[in-house]
Amino acid sequence: MKLIKNAAGRLVPTEVNGKKVIPYKGVNKYKPTGNKYGAKIKSCTDYPDNGNKVAKNLREALKKAGLKNGMTISTHHHLRNGDVLTNILFDTIKKMGIKNIRWFPSASFPVHEHLIKYLDDGTIHHIEGSMNGPLGRYTSEGKMKGVGVLRSHGGRYQSIQDGYVHVDIAVIAAPTADPFGNATGDRGKSACGLLGFALADSEYADSVIVVTDNLIPFPCSPWQIQGNNVDYVVEVESLGDPAKIVSGTTHVTKSPDRLLIAEYVADFLEHSGILKDGFSFQAGAGGTNLAFALYLKEKMIKKNIKARFIRGGSTKYLVEMLEEGLTDYILDGQTFDLEGVRSMRENSGHLNTSPFTSYNFHGKGNFASMLDAVVLGATEVDINFNANVVTHSDGYLLHGIGGWQNCMFGKTVILAIPSFRDRIPVIVDEVTTLVAPGKLVDVIVTERGIAINPKRKDLLKAVEGSGLPIKPIKEIYKEVNDICGGKPAKPKVNKDEVVAIIKWVDGTVIDSVFKVEKKYY
Amino acid sequence: MKLIKNAAGRLVPTEVNGKKVIPYKGVNKYKPTGNKYGAKIKSCTDYPDNGNKVAKNLREALKKAGLKNGMTISTHHHLRNGDVLTNILFDTIKKMGIKNIRWFPSASFPVHEHLIKYLDDGTIHHIEGSMNGPLGRYTSEGKMKGVGVLRSHGGRYQSIQDGYVHVDIAVIAAPTADPFGNATGDRGKSACGLLGFALADSEYADSVIVVTDNLIPFPCSPWQIQGNNVDYVVEVESLGDPAKIVSGTTHVTKSPDRLLIAEYVADFLEHSGILKDGFSFQAGAGGTNLAFALYLKEKMIKKNIKARFIRGGSTKYLVEMLEEGLTDYILDGQTFDLEGVRSMRENSGHLNTSPFTSYNFHGKGNFASMLDAVVLGATEVDINFNANVVTHSDGYLLHGIGGWQNCMFGKTVILAIPSFRDRIPVIVDEVTTLVAPGKLVDVIVTERGIAINPKRKDLLKAVEGSGLPIKPIKEIYKEVNDICGGKPAKPKVNKDEVVAIIKWVDGTVIDSVFKVEKKYY
Repeated sequence: MKLIKNAAGRLVPTEVNGKKVIPYKGVNKYKPTGNKYGAKIKSCTDYPDNGNKVAKNLREALKKAGLKNGMTISTHHHLRNGDVLTNILFDTIKKMGIKNIRWFPSASFPVHEHLIKYLDDGTIHHIEGSMNGPLGRYTSEGKMKGVGVLRSHGGRYQSIQDGYVHVDIAVIAAPTADPFGNATGDRGKSACGLLGFALADSEYADSVIVVTDNLIPFPCSPWQIQGNNVDYVVEVESLGDPAKIVSGTTHVTKSPDRLLIAEYVADFLEHSGILKDGFSFQAGAGGTNLAFALYLKEKMIKKNIKARFIRGGSTKYLVEMLEEGLTDYILDGQTFDLEGVRSMRENSGHLNTSPFTSYNFHGKGNFASMLDAVVLGATEVDINFNANVVTHSDGYLLHGIGGWQNCMFGKTVILAIPSFRDRIPVIVDEVTTLVAPGKLVDVIVTERGIAINPKRKDLLKAVEGSGLPIKPIKEIYKEVNDICGGKPAKPKVNKDEVVAIIKWVDGTVIDSVFKVEKKYY
Repeated sequence: MKLIKNAAGRLVPTEVNGKKVIPYKGVNKYKPTGNKYGAKIKSCTDYPDNGNKVAKNLREALKKAGLKNGMTISTHHHLRNGDVLTNILFDTIKKMGIKNIRWFPSASFPVHEHLIKYLDDGTIHHIEGSMNGPLGRYTSEGKMKGVGVLRSHGGRYQSIQDGYVHVDIAVIAAPTADPFGNATGDRGKSACGLLGFALADSEYADSVIVVTDNLIPFPCSPWQIQGNNVDYVVEVESLGDPAKIVSGTTHVTKSPDRLLIAEYVADFLEHSGILKDGFSFQAGAGGTNLAFALYLKEKMIKKNIKARFIRGGSTKYLVEMLEEGLTDYILDGQTFDLEGVRSMRENSGHLNTSPFTSYNFHGKGNFASMLDAVVLGATEVDINFNANVVTHSDGYLLHGIGGWQNCMFGKTVILAIPSFRDRIPVIVDEVTTLVAPGKLVDVIVTERGIAINPKRKDLLKAVEGSGLPIKPIKEIYKEVNDICGGKPAKPKVNKDEVVAIIKWVDGTVIDSVFKVEKKYY
């Protein structure tokens, strides 16, 4: 495999899985040309007049959709670690004797470890999509036939929209649907909230199969997925394990260090002047992020400040803020707990968003760049503010990108991270995998202090005299190395063997993930 | 202009405005090939990070959008006869010295008589879109430079989706919008209900300009038009005259004949067995249709019957049925009065639909074919059940098609019409203009009796012994000719000069409208 250095100085291939790829050119440097993909024109004469598209079972639907060797099949991670459907899907494909599928999930989870046997036996050729846990480890060890391709949520939408990835068959798990194919995730026994990650697939795939365990009479409302984009509807007894689809409750961190980080972030927003009436922020559903939201909420109440909108990963904590009038809107990209699902169903201020509205970089703007403050995590950050969210310092690919790269376009991007984990520094001299360039990272908040990117002179000035523990990043770096007894060991990887590539939001390749030679945990 | 006979025996051109057209092949006979149009791929780098796309004024927005001679500009009829914006738009285009615009409205109204001077002076080359009233008369008299093209609502969506019509600049009147371009019609001083007719244009046009008289902070919710499809936002003082945008109230007919027709239609639904629990129907907002809905409502209450959904043109009468629990849903395609707008804003059972969901024939099915009963009007019907909705018997093109052709795919299609108007028979031996083939028309209800299409043996049988005045259509035809003193005079038209064509739902040409030689009223 021929590797070249891209604009970030990273070694990347120029061809992946038999298709040319463009090396990363720098932030805002690559301009797309041409037109969006146009799906095949269909005719109502080929669909039932009465709107009933129900197929007998998944096998029949796949057969009608013309399933063949080598096709691209997409699925979505709305059911998270409770997803049973995807495993059944590939059991079915295996039974049908089909081989060499490119699996194109929006993300995969530990539950999909079940699919390793299909990667082994050639049913699945390779995965393009985030690989959390076991499939990432499998890929890291060079066992997958093709090369993994990791895209952000926005990058996934962009790749389909631009026609770079052609989806033959999209299989959409729908907690509620009607026989025409209208579907929603906000109700039903497998309720997961929204179905936004399947939007691009529903619009552009050759064939779209909606699978539901709650078939209701037309019309299913809201129609998060529009039946006019759907070919077949399949009824199953169960899509998965409700307890693993959404949490009953989400939990705030109890770690004193993480709580300190969360408090620092909230303090930073206050002292920097970002916290003001009509502001907006995004916070995920991790324990630190939840704690941050609670600290921020206290400040908002004390100062009588209302947000115009909050973007989330919605949880009961954000829902409470909406219901208590602390924000006009939640712009929800993924629903994490039962209260989030309830709110989405009931509250007209709880808005469904999608990778199209929020993250697609090849659109006429998107929501991500409008955020006043975005709080994210990372697996590593380096002294040039470059950040990694997919690999660990040992080289293992264990996490997906999600909307993380897309959120880098927020007005102030804050990485809230512990300075070390398991005695391995998180602040490093160079990230193992470059997932976001340092010029987009504004602030790094650790339990040992806050580092502001020197290019953000405005922020440095705003927090002068605030009493916040502002430090140069190199100072935190040194402290952490001292505590941990030095830098992390260099990952033992084979630089000749690329097992996965990381795409930037514009579809260019920002970095490679290399085969790990030695498994040391 | 070379004319050939299409499958309906109608003379149609093979080329219109310099572009090839396909003659009508028969119902469900023409199959499209190829792929949908893909709009140009854009990049966020070309749009403001803060989401503020506000341009100084309409002129600046048009300039930025690259307005040039010969472009196609689309507008929408959500503001109906209260639309001031479209007139201002063409005043601006005229001032900019631009010529030969193809105007592609979803419909035009008497208020657009203002534009005749721009048709005269070459600012507008020709109109593709429904022409109600003055512009239709102008076209009928052969004064327009190009040939008018009339499409149904679904046909308009299809023509854009399929790439047959390329819209250079879409100008969308938005009663409420945010600076990013998210827009809704359900609130604001110019509230009109939904904005579904602009959906295709927002998705496929090169440049999209949202014009609003109620600019609010991001996010505008609901976002009926998605800001991610919008290039520029323009603020104006007023979009139009609220009293003419939606009625304060809609009125039921007081004519004894029309009331009788309405009652017959309701009786027919009852005796034919169509009226049953979980059924669906569509009724427009005309006086007869409203009366029908009220008669039907009485029956539903008496028999304890609930509809699953009603499609409309929503009015306070449908809203009352929703609020009184007589239907689970209103599937709204166009909002006609203030109560309709209020309900759409407040009631989660009042669903927004669009030509994509309801009418697009080149989709994976649509809503129109799922209706148990559809009640429509017509300007003429002939003894073979062929129907006309665009021209009068004198040959004048005075009405648009709307969703009328698309609704012809309902399970039972009922034309509720007076047998004559102004002493001119409505039941004729051959329609002046063929807009829907007789095989799709199931029942004709007049004040003189009900004619059932002989192919619907099931309906003929169902109403046997019901006491309803079922008659062969020829009997009604003869009665009417007797009353009116004979058939209508043949229109005096020049069969060599096509002034407009009528497209079928699949984009083929079903009939031509010819130049009227003599204006006789």
